[in-house]
Amino acid sequence: MAGTPTRPSSRTRSWWGWGWADAHPDDAECTAMRTLVPGTLARPLPVPRVRDLGIGAPAVEPPRSLAHLVATDPGDRAAHAMGKAYRDVMRALRGRPGRIPDLVARPTDERGVADLLDWAGERLVAVVPYGGGSSVTGGVEYRGDAHRAVVSLDLTAMGRVLEVDTEGRAARIQAGTLGPSLEDQLRPHGLTLRHFPQSFEFSTLGGWVATRAGGHYATGRTHIDDFVQSLRVVTPAGTNSSWRLPASGAGPSPDRLFLGSEGALGVITEAWVRLQERPRHKASAAVAFTGFHDALRAVRALAQSDLSPANCRLLDAGEAALAGASRDGSAVLVLGFESADEPVDVRLERAVDLARSYGGRHGGGTGGTGGTGGEGAAGDGAVGAWRSAFLRMPYLRDGLARMGAVAETFETAATWDRIPGLIDAVRTEVGEAALKATGHPATVNCRLTHVYPDGAAPYFTVLAAGRAGDEVALWDDLKAVAGEVLHRHRATITHHHAVGRDHRPGYDRQRPEPFALALRAVKGALDPRGILNPGVLVG
Amino acid sequence: MAGTPTRPSSRTRSWWGWGWADAHPDDAECTAMRTLVPGTLARPLPVPRVRDLGIGAPAVEPPRSLAHLVATDPGDRAAHAMGKAYRDVMRALRGRPGRIPDLVARPTDERGVADLLDWAGERLVAVVPYGGGSSVTGGVEYRGDAHRAVVSLDLTAMGRVLEVDTEGRAARIQAGTLGPSLEDQLRPHGLTLRHFPQSFEFSTLGGWVATRAGGHYATGRTHIDDFVQSLRVVTPAGTNSSWRLPASGAGPSPDRLFLGSEGALGVITEAWVRLQERPRHKASAAVAFTGFHDALRAVRALAQSDLSPANCRLLDAGEAALAGASRDGSAVLVLGFESADEPVDVRLERAVDLARSYGGRHGGGTGGTGGTGGEGAAGDGAVGAWRSAFLRMPYLRDGLARMGAVAETFETAATWDRIPGLIDAVRTEVGEAALKATGHPATVNCRLTHVYPDGAAPYFTVLAAGRAGDEVALWDDLKAVAGEVLHRHRATITHHHAVGRDHRPGYDRQRPEPFALALRAVKGALDPRGILNPGVLVG
Repeated sequence: MAGTPTRPSSRTRSWWGWGWADAHPDDAECTAMRTLVPGTLARPLPVPRVRDLGIGAPAVEPPRSLAHLVATDPGDRAAHAMGKAYRDVMRALRGRPGRIPDLVARPTDERGVADLLDWAGERLVAVVPYGGGSSVTGGVEYRGDAHRAVVSLDLTAMGRVLEVDTEGRAARIQAGTLGPSLEDQLRPHGLTLRHFPQSFEFSTLGGWVATRAGGHYATGRTHIDDFVQSLRVVTPAGTNSSWRLPASGAGPSPDRLFLGSEGALGVITEAWVRLQERPRHKASAAVAFTGFHDALRAVRALAQSDLSPANCRLLDAGEAALAGASRDGSAVLVLGFESADEPVDVRLERAVDLARSYGGRHGGGTGGTGGTGGEGAAGDGAVGAWRSAFLRMPYLRDGLARMGAVAETFETAATWDRIPGLIDAVRTEVGEAALKATGHPATVNCRLTHVYPDGAAPYFTVLAAGRAGDEVALWDDLKAVAGEVLHRHRATITHHHAVGRDHRPGYDRQRPEPFALALRAVKGALDPRGILNPGVLVG
Repeated sequence: MAGTPTRPSSRTRSWWGWGWADAHPDDAECTAMRTLVPGTLARPLPVPRVRDLGIGAPAVEPPRSLAHLVATDPGDRAAHAMGKAYRDVMRALRGRPGRIPDLVARPTDERGVADLLDWAGERLVAVVPYGGGSSVTGGVEYRGDAHRAVVSLDLTAMGRVLEVDTEGRAARIQAGTLGPSLEDQLRPHGLTLRHFPQSFEFSTLGGWVATRAGGHYATGRTHIDDFVQSLRVVTPAGTNSSWRLPASGAGPSPDRLFLGSEGALGVITEAWVRLQERPRHKASAAVAFTGFHDALRAVRALAQSDLSPANCRLLDAGEAALAGASRDGSAVLVLGFESADEPVDVRLERAVDLARSYGGRHGGGTGGTGGTGGEGAAGDGAVGAWRSAFLRMPYLRDGLARMGAVAETFETAATWDRIPGLIDAVRTEVGEAALKATGHPATVNCRLTHVYPDGAAPYFTVLAAGRAGDEVALWDDLKAVAGEVLHRHRATITHHHAVGRDHRPGYDRQRPEPFALALRAVKGALDPRGILNPGVLVG
């Protein structure tokens, strides 16, 4: 039954930037990006080197029983010092990364995880659970000085699909399984999790669960929450193992307490997840809108229909231009349908018709094959352009960082009544703040990544001039402006990027106070010594 | 925006049995039910009278500020002493009801709820939140003697739809709103919650949230959990108010902690809930199966398809006969589709075809109009028969109770791999235990009320001879046998009836120990004096 984890790629992960080291834009490409943002540096900042960080000896000896699973070399430790937010990349580029962990532990089984927590609890060593390391909210670093040492607990040596239940379409999967390996191991069974966050290549099942990741589906059930059937979580107070159940009404859901717990309440070691048959039928199309607010109304109508598009992403004019999906200032709606059961062309046609009734223009042809694009209409090449740009975007962000620019994204969700005002206010207020701070106009684009009958998840891209040597503080200021707008509109501080450390101020304001009391009590009960991901969620 | 609560019915609720007093079977009808169960009494037990209970003066004076909202008369107090499980009805019939509350408080606003909790906390008075009182698991009574007095906190004076957001299809609704009034208030807006548990007439929104009620939809999203957009909950530690959000990834969900909290962590006072357009297209059909296991396979295939039937209930032969849906020993699958968007006939036809491919027989005709039923095929009159029986069933149960019989139901959920063995084991072991205890063969029927891609929710009906004067203990013994079977099959102790006090032993075995620690810590933080629904979930 058990799968074989995909052999680790021979490619090298970047210790300081997104993804694969060899996929980063080179110096010439970075320099060419100057056209995107005014006020950049003349030439790119050099690629940072671990040896320049002057990483010293670890402050603690590894536990003897686990010594063979613990790395102490500076390269590994530097790569586990932070996640991959713009502010992390910039800190690395400026030679001021976060606290370098003393050890990187890679247990191969649950016993190893429990032993490590026991050892750390006795010594007051902080343990920061680490999946693929793709956090963009400061979720996998250590800030503070209350602990004797810091261990990065890398789960990726636990990367196997352990059991597949084809009858009930579910699988038991170790938490450290990276996206591509997870799908590779499921493929022989004809099944798929179909959870494809933008970080898919560089994130793990356990990370998705710990951060309540949003995935492939643009409508309806997209958060990993809905696909979790049961969890195993090692806490300092014992191992929490819930039953595999399709549904239950027995008290508050135990799994929902650990979904979104971000490593602060326990270490997720495995999960049974709900799978699906691989889709056999797919169709997609792009629809252009002159007015963004018309497009918003169309998307709302689609989300409230029975059509259930798998993809229903709305790019505003700036985002569509950036993605190469539109050249005429139109907003572009990317629609996709899929099914394992039956052709989806009729549903796609109905969706396109619905979009047209709100002023959408479709150039004809669907499925990414036809459609060269009529006058002012989105050609369906736009679908492919968007997909490529979607995966390439984080690398470009790091190229812009090397040019000293601010280039980052953030996302939220709100009910429909607040969406137009929220988007306008973010654009205006973040744009004005950037202009004031840098003297250069900034780009603030928006797309809707996920839509629901009752609201949507806007995702913002900010491109602005930097302030040489002070880029992180500038971004923090702009983010604080954005956070105020979000709070004023009662929009969540995060739809699928998690809270981490960067979103704590917004989270603390959003979270109901009795629930904060409850979480602190849970933290005290499950992690009485406060060793787990300190500073995350509570404390 | 606000709705007007439906005027209270002039009909009288039964204080001791299900629903309306005038809907109970009379003595002759009860006596006629003897044919259903061997070994009943010769004539029905008399309808119990409140005055025979000898209810004394309350042990505590009501709080002065709320005195006008507090009832002390024996009738009201008796009606709030217990829920409506068989064991509650039987206790009333035998003149041994649960602890009679001292006061029945009916606050009209959140301030009143908070004041009551403050008052109760100072005096160590137990507060048992009470919605429609339809608990079948001992959720709304007091057991024990650790408190000076007991107040039943009846929320039904808070029964209004306060706001409707037609654009985002959501409404803010007070927790004490009963099902029919809730739908009446939404109807002018063309919207519906479409949450129709069997107890719909006699249960409230707050009760549904507190117990994670399962509703109308037989597939997919049916639990009220999925329809809650935000909650207000008054706890002794303050009021918990979450934001209206379509989705969020900001930490563990606050709402999910209170969903299923059964009044032990706080008093739910209102919720924003997600609504839908009223369906304009409906179609239904019944399919008969000779073999129950074939029917199980058909239902699994339906649940794993894209078809999303709104109704997909499978009655085994005994249950189908009892409901008047089949006379020839066939199992019957009741299928229904609905949509606000488009006709559903094609989906129904595809579903019937799929069922046929597993050996199902459909007599032709759908929609409850055609179909007299071919040879051995389920006529679609079966759909109507099932619906009537569904709503009438609790009244018949009480009639059988008056005949001294055991007549009760319980439900669970498990993954598909466990379903056939689980159902067989419950039938065999509960049947044998009843035979051994009473000397008479018992009826143990099963239906699937809800189905999921990864499992199903079997619902069992037990009809057995009683043991005169000892019926409750007999039922408790049979239920303990059932609980063992459920536990052995890792089937949840409840899919939608909640834990209450009756399911605590099963719940305590099912719940992961670290989660139990967490819940106890939360209880200590939010209800430090332990006044809220003592004995429920923790403590």
